[in-house]
Amino acid sequence: MENGRPPDPADWAVTDVVNYFRTAGFEEQANAFQEQEIDGKSLLLMTRNDVLTGLQLKLGPALKIYEYHVKPLQTKHLKNNSS
Amino acid sequence: MENGRPPDPADWAVTDVVNYFRTAGFEEQANAFQEQEIDGKSLLLMTRNDVLTGLQLKLGPALKIYEYHVKPLQTKHLKNNSS
Amino acid sequence: MENGRPPDPADWAVTDVVNYFRTAGFEEQANAFQEQEIDGKSLLLMTRNDVLTGLQLKLGPALKIYEYHVKPLQTKHLKNNSS
Amino acid sequence: MENGRPPDPADWAVTDVVNYFRTAGFEEQANAFQEQEIDGKSLLLMTRNDVLTGLQLKLGPALKIYEYHVKPLQTKHLKNNSS
Amino acid sequence: MENGRPPDPADWAVTDVVNYFRTAGFEEQANAFQEQEIDGKSLLLMTRNDVLTGLQLKLGPALKIYEYHVKPLQTKHLKNNSS
Repeated sequence: MENGRPPDPADWAVTDVVNYFRTAGFEEQANAFQEQEIDGKSLLLMTRNDVLTGLQLKLGPALKIYEYHVKPLQTKHLKNNSS
Repeated sequence: MENGRPPDPADWAVTDVVNYFRTAGFEEQANAFQEQEIDGKSLLLMTRNDVLTGLQLKLGPALKIYEYHVKPLQTKHLKNNSS
Repeated sequence: MENGRPPDPADWAVTDVVNYFRTAGFEEQANAFQEQEIDGKSLLLMTRNDVLTGLQLKLGPALKIYEYHVKPLQTKHLKNNSS
Repeated sequence: MENGRPPDPADWAVTDVVNYFRTAGFEEQANAFQEQEIDGKSLLLMTRNDVLTGLQLKLGPALKIYEYHVKPLQTKHLKNNSS
Repeated sequence: MENGRPPDPADWAVTDVVNYFRTAGFEEQANAFQEQEIDGKSLLLMTRNDVLTGLQLKLGPALKIYEYHVKPLQTKHLKNNSS
């Protein structure tokens, strides 16, 4: 457990995803993940375009959410689960 | 027949597609396939983008519907019908 | 002439395009080609994405209209006009 | 000057762009270039997708406007300005 | 400092971005960057498509904003921060 969340995002419930973004400083944007019912497995499947156009977020925060959070989470998950 | 559906998705009627997703745990999302009149032939032609933007589904379930169902059904159909 | 239409889709008027899809079993969808003023020349320029998102059709029929009609018409036109 | 317009589209004002399409037979569509404030420099930067989705034109005329006018104007400009 | 803005766009606040475009002659468009909460870090992450479709700008000015401002700012930032 890290901050009450399972270490692998693949095991996150929707609430864990929401809490992750709330803690990361995106209080206002975090609810969009609840509304779109995005759990950890879905989060790991999101492309840049999904984040920018599928969550009805303002463009500025959406760009940072993808680049500084979603992408690194996916890269780390991939590295931990390869080989 | 598998669960009352023809084995090859290419032979599914719209109702078979709807029942497939209902059985797969997407009760709420299954009706979208009815509304968009998607039978098995159309299902086999759907891209990731079609599933994510053409069915008016919430993003979380849509990502799983494509990755864990539509894509595998297409791959299996292709394998069974090649050579 | 085939069914009252010029043999090369490049020579079809909007009405010919509409009649083609009506005859092909897309009675309900055929009018969209009228509304978007698509004659044969425009039909030959349409991509998959144009058919799926530019005609406001239901996704199921749109997928078949592109795959089983627009694409083959374009391929045949290209073959007849190359070399 | 050609028809009162500077020879290089890069020098066209929005009015020149509008007049070009009016003269080319797209009376009804020409105003969209005014509404979107497209001068010659912007016209030379437009992709197929920009023409099809950014001008709120009917799909049929939009396809022809890109293929028979915007694309050739861009190709000609490019040729004239490469050494 | 250049015109009161930090030299590297990565350090610009949303207000700096807005002022940049205001000074560059896009008075009417500059507010869109405020509305979408785009600071310098987000500006450096924007693609052509983001500028054209994510800011609700008229197409003409949007094309120039990307080509003559966003793209050069990104290129210059990249050059200054590589090696």
